[in-house]
Amino acid sequence: MAAPIRLSQLAADLGRPVEGDGDVEIRGVGSIETAGPGDLTFVREERYRSRLAKSRAAAVIAPPGVDAGALSVIRSPQPGLDFARAVRILAPRKHPPAGLHPSATVDPEAEVDPTAHIGPGCRVAAGARVGARSVLHANVTLYAGVRVGADCTLHSGCVLREETELGDRVVLQPGVVLGTDGFGYVVNEDGGFEAVPQCGRVVVEDDVEIGANATIDRGTLGDTRLRRGAKLDNLVMVGHNCEVGEDAMLTAQSGLAGSVRIGRGALVLSQAGVSDHVCVGDGAYVGPQSGVTADVPARGRVLGTPHDDLPRTRRLWAALRRLPELFARVRALERHAPGNGGGRTEDSG
Amino acid sequence: MAAPIRLSQLAADLGRPVEGDGDVEIRGVGSIETAGPGDLTFVREERYRSRLAKSRAAAVIAPPGVDAGALSVIRSPQPGLDFARAVRILAPRKHPPAGLHPSATVDPEAEVDPTAHIGPGCRVAAGARVGARSVLHANVTLYAGVRVGADCTLHSGCVLREETELGDRVVLQPGVVLGTDGFGYVVNEDGGFEAVPQCGRVVVEDDVEIGANATIDRGTLGDTRLRRGAKLDNLVMVGHNCEVGEDAMLTAQSGLAGSVRIGRGALVLSQAGVSDHVCVGDGAYVGPQSGVTADVPARGRVLGTPHDDLPRTRRLWAALRRLPELFARVRALERHAPGNGGGRTEDSG
Amino acid sequence: MAAPIRLSQLAADLGRPVEGDGDVEIRGVGSIETAGPGDLTFVREERYRSRLAKSRAAAVIAPPGVDAGALSVIRSPQPGLDFARAVRILAPRKHPPAGLHPSATVDPEAEVDPTAHIGPGCRVAAGARVGARSVLHANVTLYAGVRVGADCTLHSGCVLREETELGDRVVLQPGVVLGTDGFGYVVNEDGGFEAVPQCGRVVVEDDVEIGANATIDRGTLGDTRLRRGAKLDNLVMVGHNCEVGEDAMLTAQSGLAGSVRIGRGALVLSQAGVSDHVCVGDGAYVGPQSGVTADVPARGRVLGTPHDDLPRTRRLWAALRRLPELFARVRALERHAPGNGGGRTEDSG
Repeated sequence: MAAPIRLSQLAADLGRPVEGDGDVEIRGVGSIETAGPGDLTFVREERYRSRLAKSRAAAVIAPPGVDAGALSVIRSPQPGLDFARAVRILAPRKHPPAGLHPSATVDPEAEVDPTAHIGPGCRVAAGARVGARSVLHANVTLYAGVRVGADCTLHSGCVLREETELGDRVVLQPGVVLGTDGFGYVVNEDGGFEAVPQCGRVVVEDDVEIGANATIDRGTLGDTRLRRGAKLDNLVMVGHNCEVGEDAMLTAQSGLAGSVRIGRGALVLSQAGVSDHVCVGDGAYVGPQSGVTADVPARGRVLGTPHDDLPRTRRLWAALRRLPELFARVRALERHAPGNGGGRTEDSG
Repeated sequence: MAAPIRLSQLAADLGRPVEGDGDVEIRGVGSIETAGPGDLTFVREERYRSRLAKSRAAAVIAPPGVDAGALSVIRSPQPGLDFARAVRILAPRKHPPAGLHPSATVDPEAEVDPTAHIGPGCRVAAGARVGARSVLHANVTLYAGVRVGADCTLHSGCVLREETELGDRVVLQPGVVLGTDGFGYVVNEDGGFEAVPQCGRVVVEDDVEIGANATIDRGTLGDTRLRRGAKLDNLVMVGHNCEVGEDAMLTAQSGLAGSVRIGRGALVLSQAGVSDHVCVGDGAYVGPQSGVTADVPARGRVLGTPHDDLPRTRRLWAALRRLPELFARVRALERHAPGNGGGRTEDSG
Repeated sequence: MAAPIRLSQLAADLGRPVEGDGDVEIRGVGSIETAGPGDLTFVREERYRSRLAKSRAAAVIAPPGVDAGALSVIRSPQPGLDFARAVRILAPRKHPPAGLHPSATVDPEAEVDPTAHIGPGCRVAAGARVGARSVLHANVTLYAGVRVGADCTLHSGCVLREETELGDRVVLQPGVVLGTDGFGYVVNEDGGFEAVPQCGRVVVEDDVEIGANATIDRGTLGDTRLRRGAKLDNLVMVGHNCEVGEDAMLTAQSGLAGSVRIGRGALVLSQAGVSDHVCVGDGAYVGPQSGVTADVPARGRVLGTPHDDLPRTRRLWAALRRLPELFARVRALERHAPGNGGGRTEDSG
């Protein structure tokens, strides 16, 4: 944590009003339960009031109308957003110093902005470019022709293969791999497989964030593209020629096969999979562990393997729990069917 | 792209005939839609003819009998295969120069062929051997006793633990981990777990390719083995003592538990899982997201969790969509059952 | 393998009696099938006797009462445990020498115990501490403030982000990533997403082992915690604020969303997923590929997506195979329903 800051100053930075003692010094942050003296916390709804009353926090960010008891309050219609921003003010992540670490290997034909940080053990190959204030933590590898925009953060162990392009403010958690050769093979004269050369790139637009150890294949002929603001979680897999829309989200361990299109603002939840060439529309929702084998319309909501409309899948799942009962009921009907002595027969009287 | 090449020369290299102007210069490649002037494209079937007519490509690889309009044509019974080969001719991946980068750490007791490339930050431990023309990109780690054959490509960040053995022409995408200790524990006197030492190796035969961030455990006593030509996609997991057959394919995020055998030419699709000791036969097919808990015969085709024969699973999935309807039909039957006033009863008249 | 050892000496080290020739020299280990002359093997049960009779092993660890034929025997009530220990005696993993490799980058404000090993290309940032006899293999990155206890093994390519804390005897397979920013975003005034700063840590207690390329998010405000003895397999994902209980096991490719609690000794099998805020009780069992969306009681056993009690899911799966048949039976009933000419109708009587 940085130096303490007065609540009134913090509120001013956020552009929000204070109620109560604005002179209290804020030194850190915490949840309602974990916050200690000097800490700031937040609540989103009135129903947390009783827990708030027991909190040891010094102050709270709360929406108008929520009783904060004895605590000083910053009033905000968006407590979560303002809390996130308050944390950034109180505990700014340290920015490593500009320059190249002596153990980094930067090709003379690479272009690194003098304000960028290239950490120990990094490899920046010929033709690669790193923009202003971008940070490569230790042991990041940029292959030839990679372009990294401004204000990007590439955590340790990331690998960006040839010609991969990142916009500005992109964040890659450790171990992200971009630009791998996709899974494409043709059968040759001997019945063996030959790899189809993958000539496209991975293009990652501004404000995209990608989770640890996620992997994204380059395009075969065109590009694989993650549009502005898309967020991918850990261990996500995106196949060649996919396009992930603006502000779309793919949570952990989900996977897209080849040439999939995910619409703007769509949500693909954990461990779900989307088949080759499928289009998931803008604002659509794909539930966890779903297997999506056909297009999903804009704002459609699907769940299950095979996937179906969300309410239908929920009804199906409810019905499934009663399936053994249904067998018993059919058996009872058969036993009493006209001319039926108890067995199953189509030979009725 | 390398220097342009005449179409007639390219066709000669492929061993195929040209129709039309063989003097046209080819400078690059593209799909029917993305190809521009000077580019080569390909079609597999007659039905792409109308799209081909609009293409800006300079030439096309097409099967006999497919009308190529005004474009020059290389005739090939296998357009996909020949296009892949043409790409390799037109855009050969650059081979890094032979030798050890000064920032690499190569043990004096390692043996590296003078034609191999050992990139920045690589670690080659004692007893490791790297064959002719093999390339280790930046930050690859070979533990003691690892053997890498000839003409292999190990992308950045790969880790090969002790005694792992690669054949020739093996390709590892970035972040591949081979030879990890498998998940084996025994309960001790205190009720805690002790790891079972994993003494076997990972053996990867010729022409195997493994996708980014995939992980393969070493054998417990014997070896884990990927046979010639097997292809594994990104984020695949192979447990200890497994054997993956020749030319078998495991696509993204699929996983094999311990001692699984995958037959020659078998296909395990994305996010599928195969349980301990299960044998998937030669040429078998395991559909995406399947959970395979029992042996699959040679050329068997299975799908679903729990897995079943493919047509049976498809029938089941079709029936499931009508399950709520079935409940309604049974309710109707009950309502009209003899002696039944509407409830469910076995007390019929 | 180290120098050969007499069977009687090995038995003494294990605290177990020998039957037969105690002077036989043991040079290695193997399974019943793979063991050769000079090798030790083991059996757990009488039913392996016929295979044991054909083994070429020099000696066997077997439970009391199991006939070992001509082989010398170490008698043990826990053959698997004693075999694991025998392997450690016969084939101890070599411990790399103490000290810092010259290509490692260790911050002057880091504290590394003089008995620890810091391998080539490692990065140890300011404020990081590494305890006695711990080993960092090549290219491991410790961010600022990381604490590694004593006798830990961190394999190549592991990345521990800021403030991550490891206890003693922790083993990380290659490519493990700890302390990543979890997947948390708030919507801002422009409808875009802003990341919620993740201020907590990852805390890994004593004797935890984590598989290759697994990823664990730091807590948002509190910590993500893996308790003593927990074992995680390859490619496992643990979201922010989770708590994994003592001796719990998560096998390959399973995933926990945010704020999940896994009880002591619980078992979450491969490719299973557990939803946000769900609590899996002590000693509970979650079957492979399950999707757990609600709490599981202590010692509960669940399976399936959606998950249900294990026996109920097994009954359901059995019933599902007969679902097409059920449709046929209902059709037959409808055909013969009173007043029904064959169609489905509620107009009976």
